[in-house]
Amino acid sequence: MTAVSSSPVESSPGSRLLEPERETASAERIREVQLRRAVELSRLAQERSAFYRESFGAAGISPGDIASWEDFETRVPFMSKDAIRAWRDRTGDGFGGLLTVDPSDVTTVTASSGTTGDPTFFVEQWPGQVCSPLTACYLRSLWELGVRPGDTVLCNPAGLRGYLEDGFRALGAVPLLVDTWMGNWDEVAEVIRRYRPTYAQLMSPHLVELERLAHRGVDMRELMSSFVGVGFAGEPLGARMREKLTSEWGLKLWVYTSAGDTGLAWECGEHDGYHLNWDETLVEVLDADGRAVGDGEVGELVVTALDNDVYPLIRYRTDDLVRLTRETCGCGRTSPRMWVLGRAGDETVVAGRAVLPHEVWSIVEQEEETETGLFQIIRPQREVERLRVRVGFEDSGEVDLADLCRRLTASLSSRLGIPADLVDLLPETADQLLRRGSAAKVPRVAKS
Amino acid sequence: MTAVSSSPVESSPGSRLLEPERETASAERIREVQLRRAVELSRLAQERSAFYRESFGAAGISPGDIASWEDFETRVPFMSKDAIRAWRDRTGDGFGGLLTVDPSDVTTVTASSGTTGDPTFFVEQWPGQVCSPLTACYLRSLWELGVRPGDTVLCNPAGLRGYLEDGFRALGAVPLLVDTWMGNWDEVAEVIRRYRPTYAQLMSPHLVELERLAHRGVDMRELMSSFVGVGFAGEPLGARMREKLTSEWGLKLWVYTSAGDTGLAWECGEHDGYHLNWDETLVEVLDADGRAVGDGEVGELVVTALDNDVYPLIRYRTDDLVRLTRETCGCGRTSPRMWVLGRAGDETVVAGRAVLPHEVWSIVEQEEETETGLFQIIRPQREVERLRVRVGFEDSGEVDLADLCRRLTASLSSRLGIPADLVDLLPETADQLLRRGSAAKVPRVAKS
Repeated sequence: MTAVSSSPVESSPGSRLLEPERETASAERIREVQLRRAVELSRLAQERSAFYRESFGAAGISPGDIASWEDFETRVPFMSKDAIRAWRDRTGDGFGGLLTVDPSDVTTVTASSGTTGDPTFFVEQWPGQVCSPLTACYLRSLWELGVRPGDTVLCNPAGLRGYLEDGFRALGAVPLLVDTWMGNWDEVAEVIRRYRPTYAQLMSPHLVELERLAHRGVDMRELMSSFVGVGFAGEPLGARMREKLTSEWGLKLWVYTSAGDTGLAWECGEHDGYHLNWDETLVEVLDADGRAVGDGEVGELVVTALDNDVYPLIRYRTDDLVRLTRETCGCGRTSPRMWVLGRAGDETVVAGRAVLPHEVWSIVEQEEETETGLFQIIRPQREVERLRVRVGFEDSGEVDLADLCRRLTASLSSRLGIPADLVDLLPETADQLLRRGSAAKVPRVAKS
Repeated sequence: MTAVSSSPVESSPGSRLLEPERETASAERIREVQLRRAVELSRLAQERSAFYRESFGAAGISPGDIASWEDFETRVPFMSKDAIRAWRDRTGDGFGGLLTVDPSDVTTVTASSGTTGDPTFFVEQWPGQVCSPLTACYLRSLWELGVRPGDTVLCNPAGLRGYLEDGFRALGAVPLLVDTWMGNWDEVAEVIRRYRPTYAQLMSPHLVELERLAHRGVDMRELMSSFVGVGFAGEPLGARMREKLTSEWGLKLWVYTSAGDTGLAWECGEHDGYHLNWDETLVEVLDADGRAVGDGEVGELVVTALDNDVYPLIRYRTDDLVRLTRETCGCGRTSPRMWVLGRAGDETVVAGRAVLPHEVWSIVEQEEETETGLFQIIRPQREVERLRVRVGFEDSGEVDLADLCRRLTASLSSRLGIPADLVDLLPETADQLLRRGSAAKVPRVAKS
């Protein structure tokens, strides 16, 4: 659906935006195209997917009934990862009843990182296009952060939702295909020195490797000086780590996150919220009763994947709590921007106060010994009387555990205004981090 | 250069070979095309690459001088990884003086696994082709082992020489892009159960993960039953492990190896040597003085990459010791086959007898406690009076170290017929293996 996925780059090197016409289209024009796609997708899904035939049928919808925004927003039922999982378990269909084409006609199947222990799959078909629509939207951010045809870029094998090499080539960049995953950064450093890439994508586990290089005396500012920008995704980046990467090592970080599994949402050069690509993701923000909340208010992100006809995600409940603005951004883009507060399912109600993991994070990372921000909220059920937290500390051999425990408990209690206990302090060495690396994410809430 | 890289699959599903005309061409026809390419490449390299301009010039060759096999085999100088490295260090040119086009015109840069601590880079350009020539040749093996259009296949992010997704698609297969690297196999097992892929590529570190699944009670034979074949590369596979994978778990293994960095060399269904793709790799097997040895005799593999005009490797000394046959194979292919004995640089002369790591391996893996075959030959210089070996053992807590040491020393001495010492027995847990996973290979010879 995006221009770059089927044709070469048309923007001029001096332009800030890769596809200015699409990226700055008026809200009215966007809504018009989005509605047409939502209507098409609803009919297609009901006609060809067993899952939607059942759910739309149960909601009393006949094919063709969905024709307006009002139809879509009031009649189309929600769906969720749980619903796909239930269908899979019931029928044994690995595609969860969603697929609208023959499995052999699919272009690619990708998997999410499976943080919650059950990976989500995404099935795509893009005949005649050089890369997936998701990748094509990724390129808009690469362009804005400064990647240009002829640049070399590090191509990370640990892609979320697939690799990026085709996309890099579509942009005219030369992908350096090296294994940037754990344990390999001596080699990666060599590649960086030789080929001076302008872009890399990092995730939390990479930071352990970068810190190792720094500890061994590598001049990180000099090593990383060829990068015009560095994409960062996966686990949220703590404020202290961000400070180190940007101020100490001089990295120009561009953070991105998932647009509820239907695409990506990137910071732009304004670094003021994550842009949703309007041709990829139709977004609603809803309260617990399924009613739309206003701009700036917290609600659950509900998405419709506008660019995927073969594995439709329509009104998909993401469990992500977000705030949204539809105001035009300083960068000129008209697409909505969001701020992510955490998973709705991770919200813990402590003595009547709702606590989200990011609040705990910002407190944990303030202490020197726990600046990596490794912690888990322990709760047997969603509502508890006391906050209980397990924290990992860097075991340098000189840590005063009793004192660290006192400091953490005190700041958790006072800053959150609730009773808090430290359940466990675990030594968390770089090696242990490394071993856990592949998961890319730590579950922030645990039952025990 | 290969058919599949620029056009869709033309073979019929029932055919054993993907490109029968090319794969069974007569030796005369092959030599004719190879000579034309070798001549073209020699001229091109001398005209456009600084490295070859210097080396050919020093050898008294003018552009156009190389026109026959005799010219090529007697006048064209050898080159090596050391020569590229030296050029890089001298000039700071990351491409080692080899590149014949502007760096921004390159399609991709890939890196070898860097076992020896200095990764080798490979630079490719393939305009208008859906995948790299190396990948296209890979597809011949996929076809023969039974992958057909419409199949789903596991797509490994830890690719040597690049990822394979474009190649899988060129074959009409649906790539499942999941992270099959360390720590992720619970998720991968889920993917296998849901999508029943017919092909996966494994390397040694994956085996640790597979064993973990088996130890936890997963029925490996059932889990892996959808695979028509499994490619295996990287570190050599020990006989005991091969037995487990094939007899116990029912995997149909197809092992492949590097064609001296210019491509890949795969076993075919006859499992009788590694086939070299004649349109990718021109091969010579030479003795220490640079003279060709006969079929079946051991010599150093020297290769010329016939399919790469932008980063020419001409008469590249690989340091690999091989035996070669040019006899037509039982599968019908006319391409030469090789057997790899080890690295020439790893040959250790013990009390006058040349010992290669694979000989030590086959002895170490015979003992229960050391069946994973982890060992290093320790030598301060190439010629020594006693063989000294460091061995890793599985530390189950019930190992009788003195007895294990006696058994290993005795069998090394008696079976190799030389004085041997066990320098060190190191506990080698699965966790330690895991941490070392990314390197994919263990250096088999160490100075200390």
